[in-house]
Amino acid sequence: MNNDKKGSLLLAWQVRGKHCLVIGGGDVALSRIEHLIIAQAKITVIAGAHPQSRILDLYHQGLIYKLLERNYQPQDLRMYDNGKMNLDYESITAADFTVIDQYLHNHRFEIVCCAIDDHQLSAQIYYQCKLNGLNANIADKPELCDFYFGSMINIDNLQIMISTNGKSPRLAKIIKDIIKKQIENIDLNKAIENLNFIRSTLRSKLPDNDVKTIDARMQWIKQLTDSFELKQWSQFNINPDNAKRITDYYPEYPPKRVDAFERIL
Amino acid sequence: MNNDKKGSLLLAWQVRGKHCLVIGGGDVALSRIEHLIIAQAKITVIAGAHPQSRILDLYHQGLIYKLLERNYQPQDLRMYDNGKMNLDYESITAADFTVIDQYLHNHRFEIVCCAIDDHQLSAQIYYQCKLNGLNANIADKPELCDFYFGSMINIDNLQIMISTNGKSPRLAKIIKDIIKKQIENIDLNKAIENLNFIRSTLRSKLPDNDVKTIDARMQWIKQLTDSFELKQWSQFNINPDNAKRITDYYPEYPPKRVDAFERIL
Repeated sequence: MNNDKKGSLLLAWQVRGKHCLVIGGGDVALSRIEHLIIAQAKITVIAGAHPQSRILDLYHQGLIYKLLERNYQPQDLRMYDNGKMNLDYESITAADFTVIDQYLHNHRFEIVCCAIDDHQLSAQIYYQCKLNGLNANIADKPELCDFYFGSMINIDNLQIMISTNGKSPRLAKIIKDIIKKQIENIDLNKAIENLNFIRSTLRSKLPDNDVKTIDARMQWIKQLTDSFELKQWSQFNINPDNAKRITDYYPEYPPKRVDAFERIL
Repeated sequence: MNNDKKGSLLLAWQVRGKHCLVIGGGDVALSRIEHLIIAQAKITVIAGAHPQSRILDLYHQGLIYKLLERNYQPQDLRMYDNGKMNLDYESITAADFTVIDQYLHNHRFEIVCCAIDDHQLSAQIYYQCKLNGLNANIADKPELCDFYFGSMINIDNLQIMISTNGKSPRLAKIIKDIIKKQIENIDLNKAIENLNFIRSTLRSKLPDNDVKTIDARMQWIKQLTDSFELKQWSQFNINPDNAKRITDYYPEYPPKRVDAFERIL
């Protein structure tokens, strides 16, 4: 399989505590809301007259900041706006930064997601967003999307997104399941902690000030990491003492069989 | 490992053919440029007096749209701007959409990435971007980022992003290697094609018009998919004929052992 390297720009968008707008009250709207909840956004939903019950639940749980059970109107895009900032961008100074931050956090939508059935109104909403400088996603209208959502995995601090750029949601789902199986039920933090003990012990043994040593050290850690599965790394109990015994092998390697490796711990 | 479900909003940003700006000429700037090339953006780089040689290479290969070997100045953010659009967003009609599209594609930056050493100027650039309604990432200043970059895998139409929200780049790297090993050297398109043959054959056998049947069918396909590794799915040769023989087992399943399964093909 070749590597033609074409696609989207996959980014981790920071919407924590920022206003985000969802227009719609059905299943797609719900899925947008769930993504935004994970990202800790301040979510306003314009849900139409009959939002689906799960949206009402989320609102009652306090996970939705504002729920309006009516249809969209253009002024909604500036719902929290307190008028334009009167600053000349070329001459701003550090004193202006707080004012701008406040405006960004309290008075504008970071992202607008539209998931309604009316295609004509959807298009209208997209261009209204753009005229207001707002980032927008219009469900079912890929050409009217600044960004797409993908298949996502969230475990602790780890997030994985699988995107096929709309070409094969099925593939995205299969890959997602494969990855999930690999990393589920593994104490990732423990694995990282174990590896970090070894790395920091080796670093304190070998001085940093020469590029060749740094390279060799990184190469050694990489090889050692590859000797065991992530699950095995999560099950070892590395501490500063046995980390020293492991790094004593350097530049050679400790035993690659789990039982032999465990005996030096 | 529990699932506290907190993080960023992972999104596939659409920058294909759109102007994007990179400020800086070092390694981090290069990495931003490489991401933007994959996403087929129209890249302008303000690289300072001495951009690193790989950036010059990319420019000479035609992968960078414009390269300026000088320092940033605030007007750069409106480099392609032809003045504001004079439209009242509340009353736009379909006739205005093309004008707005043209403006979005030709006259403004979709994304600004800044990777320079001057922290004071970096902050200034972020707020100048925001006053111009531009999405920005300031390297080394997480609090001045509308979005972060993550560890990425690109294979054909498949893109995978691994983010630890800055908490453990090492974990991101390990997970990335694990996933790569799982899906590299697999003809993903072939696997999907094989599965699609089976799915469409089953669909043509069982009518769509009842939710219970759809559910049962999807469940069966899911179970069947899980019977084999993705690599095995990529190695079968499913066609409309043997897809019929496979789906004849429904609601039971074809043999789960590879050799037995292959005998019915």
